[in-house]
Amino acid sequence: MQALRGPSTYGEEPSRHPSLKVNAKEPFNAEPPRTALIESYVTSVDMFYKRNHGPIPVLDDLDRYRVIVGGLVPKPLLISMDDIRMLPKYTIMATLQCAGNRRTPMSKTKTVKGVGWDVGAVGNAVWGGAKLLDLLKLVGVPENTANTEAGGRHVEFTSVDVCKEEKGGPYKASIPLLQATNPIADVLLAYEMNGEVLNRDHGYPLRVIVPGTIGARSVKWLDRIEVIANECQGFFMQKDYKMFPPTVDWDNIDWLSRRPLMDFPVQCAICSLEDICSIERRKKVSIRGYALSGGGRGIERVDVSVDGGKTWMEARKYQRDYIHYVADSEECDKWAWVLFELEAEIHPPTDIIAKAVDSSANVQPEKVETIWNLRGVLNNSWHVIHLNSSPKPIRSSL
Amino acid sequence: MQALRGPSTYGEEPSRHPSLKVNAKEPFNAEPPRTALIESYVTSVDMFYKRNHGPIPVLDDLDRYRVIVGGLVPKPLLISMDDIRMLPKYTIMATLQCAGNRRTPMSKTKTVKGVGWDVGAVGNAVWGGAKLLDLLKLVGVPENTANTEAGGRHVEFTSVDVCKEEKGGPYKASIPLLQATNPIADVLLAYEMNGEVLNRDHGYPLRVIVPGTIGARSVKWLDRIEVIANECQGFFMQKDYKMFPPTVDWDNIDWLSRRPLMDFPVQCAICSLEDICSIERRKKVSIRGYALSGGGRGIERVDVSVDGGKTWMEARKYQRDYIHYVADSEECDKWAWVLFELEAEIHPPTDIIAKAVDSSANVQPEKVETIWNLRGVLNNSWHVIHLNSSPKPIRSSL
Repeated sequence: MQALRGPSTYGEEPSRHPSLKVNAKEPFNAEPPRTALIESYVTSVDMFYKRNHGPIPVLDDLDRYRVIVGGLVPKPLLISMDDIRMLPKYTIMATLQCAGNRRTPMSKTKTVKGVGWDVGAVGNAVWGGAKLLDLLKLVGVPENTANTEAGGRHVEFTSVDVCKEEKGGPYKASIPLLQATNPIADVLLAYEMNGEVLNRDHGYPLRVIVPGTIGARSVKWLDRIEVIANECQGFFMQKDYKMFPPTVDWDNIDWLSRRPLMDFPVQCAICSLEDICSIERRKKVSIRGYALSGGGRGIERVDVSVDGGKTWMEARKYQRDYIHYVADSEECDKWAWVLFELEAEIHPPTDIIAKAVDSSANVQPEKVETIWNLRGVLNNSWHVIHLNSSPKPIRSSL
Repeated sequence: MQALRGPSTYGEEPSRHPSLKVNAKEPFNAEPPRTALIESYVTSVDMFYKRNHGPIPVLDDLDRYRVIVGGLVPKPLLISMDDIRMLPKYTIMATLQCAGNRRTPMSKTKTVKGVGWDVGAVGNAVWGGAKLLDLLKLVGVPENTANTEAGGRHVEFTSVDVCKEEKGGPYKASIPLLQATNPIADVLLAYEMNGEVLNRDHGYPLRVIVPGTIGARSVKWLDRIEVIANECQGFFMQKDYKMFPPTVDWDNIDWLSRRPLMDFPVQCAICSLEDICSIERRKKVSIRGYALSGGGRGIERVDVSVDGGKTWMEARKYQRDYIHYVADSEECDKWAWVLFELEAEIHPPTDIIAKAVDSSANVQPEKVETIWNLRGVLNNSWHVIHLNSSPKPIRSSL
């Protein structure tokens, strides 16, 4: 029997924090309440969103755990956790975001397929582990390699879990070999999250972290890492996590016509308020949230409006307390989100809006309708909170 | 006297193609007519936009021409064109786009400052030359360097031209050292354009090409390449080519509050039609144009509407004839634009709209008003052509 195994039933699930909002029970998919996201720059492990496609794998014996590192490489290896720990250790501050984050509001335009998410399918953590590049060097693949001699051009990560969509097979995904072997792309084999041993929900004993890329490529519970010729042909690369134009629906979909999503677009969300909040007129309210962009691009600006978009103010941006945040500055965390804050007097009923600009000057689209897609991925439209007026004191703002 | 000199008057300007639309005469700034942009994937040198800040420099003696390669590096050098030609030669297909492309239509929202441009401040060429990285290695800076031992973190390029904005000093700009020393960032010292010796308008004898970055960083007529500690403090880095929020105007501008623009956002334009075109009802028309994104991101999709945005169709995308274009595929030109084409029956009066999606799923903003900025940079809003109906045959479409 394998040391790490994927159960086919849900009898061995770990316990989870009761505050999580459960969007699907089996497989377990849950997000924190909005306010938990902005309590700290680093999201606690408990409050980090859980995104699964099957029951959580179980490690029976760490000493016997091995990962196959092979495929189209000169010197395939079978490695243990001790081998991984012998490689130089890196800690990378990186935000993971599910491509389905903010799917629920996209459904209001027209129904989309997939687990519903509010704005919480995102979290920021310190990941500790070895660089994938260092492991690839051990099997004979040097840095900045686009093609191996044997014709390898992608790195496929295979889990041990049991997924219905894979007909009982494991979850898998791939990234380009050039990204995997680019020293500044920081692709990590993580065994720690926020300084502690990775927990079962997040991939124990070993997972990939692909910074700046949709969460679906950061495969958990690793069984195999293989250099392959063509992109991974798994369900979650080929028949899911792709973005179609609004004209494509389930009756005319051609999965082959689109690339798997990798890098994601500029995004932001207000987390200190909910649509159901009732606010006293002329009350000063703190508008807080997160902003992020894919591919290592920083956040240049977060604009906030408290009058439905008639006028705008720029929010203060921050990451760690003791470093002034400047997009793309070397001192700042390239792969991590940016939190924002603005205090403003509110005159409800009104719409509060936030929109971000990334360091490539990409902006968020105003209307969700213009980016509607049948899988409900990458909703990064302006984030709008509808506020009612109330004679009562503030209830739900931070 | 220096071998390469920047005149202070306009008596030694080169001749230019008479079809260019001159937006400013001195300094010379001109763009091709829209249709010239889509005549071929590679823009001809004559039809490539000309963007200058002073009179065109004159090279009196190629044999005496030297470039200082110095600053915070271990072994500064004075190099000749022969030295540059001894380095491995690379040819890179790269599109340059001025940050002010499409400035004129942004002015319709509210006046902006700067040379007016329609959609033609963009062009695609094959640049031949040495990699900046190879030159930096000669002076002791290895690949993937963020900091030199002496504290260098940026590479500054200085021209020999005479710019009013620099009070008679030369044009200069910098890029991060990490970008300059990243082998896959393809930063080039170009001496050829489309297989011919670079001409005077485009930087003869030597210029920088920084792929995926606004044109303003690809400095022409090189005099000095210096590794420096802080970003270049020149006018065009610090007091120009920055993007401000719509709330900032000339009375409240704080130049220090923003980063210099580098990478640019997803963009597209229809080039086969002009607003003044009159089209017969129900005529089949070819809608053609270009799309591009910064930072090496590819084009995932170009959506076209012929009914003012009510319905959309996907355009065919292409680069070189013999290679099927797929965003971010290794076979395609990473740094180059993508041309698009769609045939559709038109029912004027109507608005024809094009909008692109890049490989990070970034989209163009619908309305120019939401990205208005006082310098009129990076107008990448949906490109709209207003068509009138006419009983006469087609006049101006391709």
